[in-house]
Amino acid sequence: MATEKVQVVEKILDANDQVASQTQTLLTGSGVFSINIMASPGAGKTSVILKTIEKLSGKMRIGVIEGDTAPVTIDADKVMAMGMPAVQINTGGQCHLDAMMIDRALKHIDYKALDLIIVENVGNLICPAAFKIGTHANVVISSVPEGDDKPYKYTNIYRGIDVLLINKIDLLPYLDFRMDYFQQGVEILNPGLTTFKVSCKTEEGFDQWIHWLSQQVDEFKNRIHA
Amino acid sequence: MATEKVQVVEKILDANDQVASQTQTLLTGSGVFSINIMASPGAGKTSVILKTIEKLSGKMRIGVIEGDTAPVTIDADKVMAMGMPAVQINTGGQCHLDAMMIDRALKHIDYKALDLIIVENVGNLICPAAFKIGTHANVVISSVPEGDDKPYKYTNIYRGIDVLLINKIDLLPYLDFRMDYFQQGVEILNPGLTTFKVSCKTEEGFDQWIHWLSQQVDEFKNRIHA
Repeated sequence: MATEKVQVVEKILDANDQVASQTQTLLTGSGVFSINIMASPGAGKTSVILKTIEKLSGKMRIGVIEGDTAPVTIDADKVMAMGMPAVQINTGGQCHLDAMMIDRALKHIDYKALDLIIVENVGNLICPAAFKIGTHANVVISSVPEGDDKPYKYTNIYRGIDVLLINKIDLLPYLDFRMDYFQQGVEILNPGLTTFKVSCKTEEGFDQWIHWLSQQVDEFKNRIHA
Repeated sequence: MATEKVQVVEKILDANDQVASQTQTLLTGSGVFSINIMASPGAGKTSVILKTIEKLSGKMRIGVIEGDTAPVTIDADKVMAMGMPAVQINTGGQCHLDAMMIDRALKHIDYKALDLIIVENVGNLICPAAFKIGTHANVVISSVPEGDDKPYKYTNIYRGIDVLLINKIDLLPYLDFRMDYFQQGVEILNPGLTTFKVSCKTEEGFDQWIHWLSQQVDEFKNRIHA
């Protein structure tokens, strides 16, 4: 049965990657930059997204695709309360988003009218790393209360990502978090990774993240119009 | 392909539950009580285990089975440094432990000499809920920095567990965590669930958890010797 399982998993990943590639082509053709945000449960994905929307409000049109394992709309409601379009995906217990889910979600959002799509993946440091969903950049948010050993334990999620946000740095005075040890672990997996230390509460470091993200969107638009 | 996938998943779960049932019979027959600790990455599973060993040192013999997705022995090393036997399971990227992994791990530990086996599951709030591993009690650790909306988003993990530890309560003064809202969410999923609010740092609430756990072990021994 183990072989059967492996074969099915491979087939699923192949089919997934094909749809992911089609999605990326579609979004690129429509001039929409897209990012996939991955993190542990409670690392602050939704808070970072809401603060990012607030900071970029009036500067670009943003849509959000929210992934949850349960039929809740807590996060999508918060995004819509800020006047931005949001689609909620209920994975029905599946522990990650896949490319087919994003393909279906895009049918419910006027993506051609947007500059940026932010996908909030399911809170999980393991399986989201294996499933491409068609976005242009992969982001991981790590929060300091999770501890400084995470890059040593959940290695795959840090590989192949484009940017890392180290969140909740306002809590550093109350934690035994060795920033050097954490960053050394990440450096082994993803040398030279662009990293921002941020706090949604105090907004520390947020301007640098917003500057980087805006630059990515601008460069993307320049590339596709070149 | 979707049907094929579902059938394979069902076959895997059936086979898993069968092995889990055998494991539980084996451990019961050997007089060893066992618990399965599930939580997000960084909720404090290892810290709770180490503090629990420290508090019960000299009172009972404890063995630990550590689940990780990567070949690291950070946690097992910490347990062994406290003089207790530990086995490390590398799931090879799989996002949860399963019963077959526990079955194999038990071959590397002298479980008959123990009173209590603590299994540290992979850090994940989703899939561990679906896979029985043969332990006598299921424990979830939630840490307050993860936020008070977790029971509303990761519903399955709170169902069918026997005890909940709300950890890192020393950080409450620095967080916007509504304890009432969190506990109301849990109450809907698991009415009357035994819950302890703890801090590994200040040891607040730890005596109550240790008292409950010791009582479970005693009652288990009385039951099997009756």
